[in-house]
Amino acid sequence: MKLATLKDGSRDGQLAVVSRDLATAHYATGIAAKMQQVLDDWGFISPQLQDLYDTLNQGKARHAFPFDPAQCMAPLPRAYQWADGSAFINHVELVRAARNSEVPKSFYEDPLMYQGGSDDFLGPTDDAFFLTEDWGIDFEAEVAVVTGDVKMGATPDQALEGVRLVMLANDWSLRNLIPNELAKGFGFFQSKPATAFSPVAVTPDELGDAWQGGRVHLTLQSSWNGRKVGMCDAGPEMTFSFGQLIAHIAKTRNVRAGSIVGSGTVSNKGVDNGSGKTEWPKGYSCIAEKRAIETIQDGKPSTEFMKFGDTIKLEMKGKDGQSVFGTIEQKVAKP
Amino acid sequence: MKLATLKDGSRDGQLAVVSRDLATAHYATGIAAKMQQVLDDWGFISPQLQDLYDTLNQGKARHAFPFDPAQCMAPLPRAYQWADGSAFINHVELVRAARNSEVPKSFYEDPLMYQGGSDDFLGPTDDAFFLTEDWGIDFEAEVAVVTGDVKMGATPDQALEGVRLVMLANDWSLRNLIPNELAKGFGFFQSKPATAFSPVAVTPDELGDAWQGGRVHLTLQSSWNGRKVGMCDAGPEMTFSFGQLIAHIAKTRNVRAGSIVGSGTVSNKGVDNGSGKTEWPKGYSCIAEKRAIETIQDGKPSTEFMKFGDTIKLEMKGKDGQSVFGTIEQKVAKP
Repeated sequence: MKLATLKDGSRDGQLAVVSRDLATAHYATGIAAKMQQVLDDWGFISPQLQDLYDTLNQGKARHAFPFDPAQCMAPLPRAYQWADGSAFINHVELVRAARNSEVPKSFYEDPLMYQGGSDDFLGPTDDAFFLTEDWGIDFEAEVAVVTGDVKMGATPDQALEGVRLVMLANDWSLRNLIPNELAKGFGFFQSKPATAFSPVAVTPDELGDAWQGGRVHLTLQSSWNGRKVGMCDAGPEMTFSFGQLIAHIAKTRNVRAGSIVGSGTVSNKGVDNGSGKTEWPKGYSCIAEKRAIETIQDGKPSTEFMKFGDTIKLEMKGKDGQSVFGTIEQKVAKP
Repeated sequence: MKLATLKDGSRDGQLAVVSRDLATAHYATGIAAKMQQVLDDWGFISPQLQDLYDTLNQGKARHAFPFDPAQCMAPLPRAYQWADGSAFINHVELVRAARNSEVPKSFYEDPLMYQGGSDDFLGPTDDAFFLTEDWGIDFEAEVAVVTGDVKMGATPDQALEGVRLVMLANDWSLRNLIPNELAKGFGFFQSKPATAFSPVAVTPDELGDAWQGGRVHLTLQSSWNGRKVGMCDAGPEMTFSFGQLIAHIAKTRNVRAGSIVGSGTVSNKGVDNGSGKTEWPKGYSCIAEKRAIETIQDGKPSTEFMKFGDTIKLEMKGKDGQSVFGTIEQKVAKP
């Protein structure tokens, strides 16, 4: 099923079920008011939502209305955890190659992950506000899952059982703040402002056999100012599965319902273009990668980061060609 | 006023008002059921809680019952943000001196801060479970505040206005996991398991003139296995005020109601004992500092980290000698 949270002026919005084709929606009134409630009591509440979803898809829901992504908050407008991995090791390889730094061997066995702020997420069409362009504004197209409760010490297989919902994320990054921040040794903080999520979050069964091995085997499309810049496959090159990422969190603590876990920038390897030169035919899911490629090829980056007024659009289509999660479509704005 | 969250089998517990002397409590039934609700709507709800608090202190509350810290969850059993500073630069100096590493100048102007997991906090008397002692189990005695909404770009003065509640924290740390984790460059993650908080959270006015300049000018007492090891002043040596810490978070994003912000390990400078040798008369608020001091003095640490069965007790008394927040009293346990 597909779930969304609609704006109603409150902090947590109003839970709605959305039809498979994203055409209609229906408030979950009488079942659950808020998304976190569903995650807190998944076994009891989700079958009721599934019934409503089936009725809605059959066109028989009584109070259905047209679904408008512009009315969406993030599926979880605020969450108790947002842990973002960097599971596409190609992203790390690219960024490191651009600064002549090798990827440590351990990075292929032990996921990189940072804890993000989760008190103030952005809806899929909300403007992203930044005080200045000088911070190096960049998008990051990602896949994310929402978990149920996962016990401390869970194996990747056990952790994968905890996946309740899948969605897309735009993990806004402030590239020019990153070097100083990482040099301090405590990881990202100011360089990771509010993250945006797709209009709907879907249960893994909606992905059919594209959900395999704890990965989403579909293409994540990124369009920057209307130009398609990324068509990256989110499946096979994801070095660590969502099961492994969740197990990484659960090594020393319990993971509680409503935790959001991200894949990191979806990134595909370059290929030899036949004349011995590497090309990246799938494009990029963040500008930092484009700049890394330029640096590797030309010695320095030529593409600038985003400016006020720039737009970014992220979408993923299913094997039937239909949008799975709806589109994230944001504008970079000055407050 | 003083607020607590009592265990009732639910994830968020039941909100209660606690008398100034911590002797009696009263459910906030009819006013608010959960702590987060109060923070979401502080202006409307807090005066009603204050009225109940006044009645309770006068011994006139109808359904008062004896307050039992063992029935407490963390005041916010789960939160949308837990951002922990390292505001006592002496702590950083000590730890760095032990490994012959200088503190960068910028550390005196730009706070160190990490984003912690906030989906699964521990109550003040909950056992702290760890899968193995080998991880280097350590306590960290801290002061923490809970905020209301603070806008992106807020100054430290504006940010300080956003402080709603003050409490104590035991920011459990797994020291032996830290070096590898920091070497990866993304900051703490597995090395920071679930954090515990004091039985009650109090409004700043409860601290009287001990709340000054965004700091709590009182002594934080730490007792390890019944032995008093720390009597550190949480006031003057806090390099960055809570206003500065909150403003640090708000530089690139909004800070939303219910965010918890920590001081980092409360730490006081060593003093010359008269014969040219440095002593630390105030003791330590985490074992890592004790080991740093031993390393500076003897070339290597001799105190071991915590073992299963060890206990830690954290408490802060007001100028009247009464416990302000109640005591955190935890045992290290194997699941």
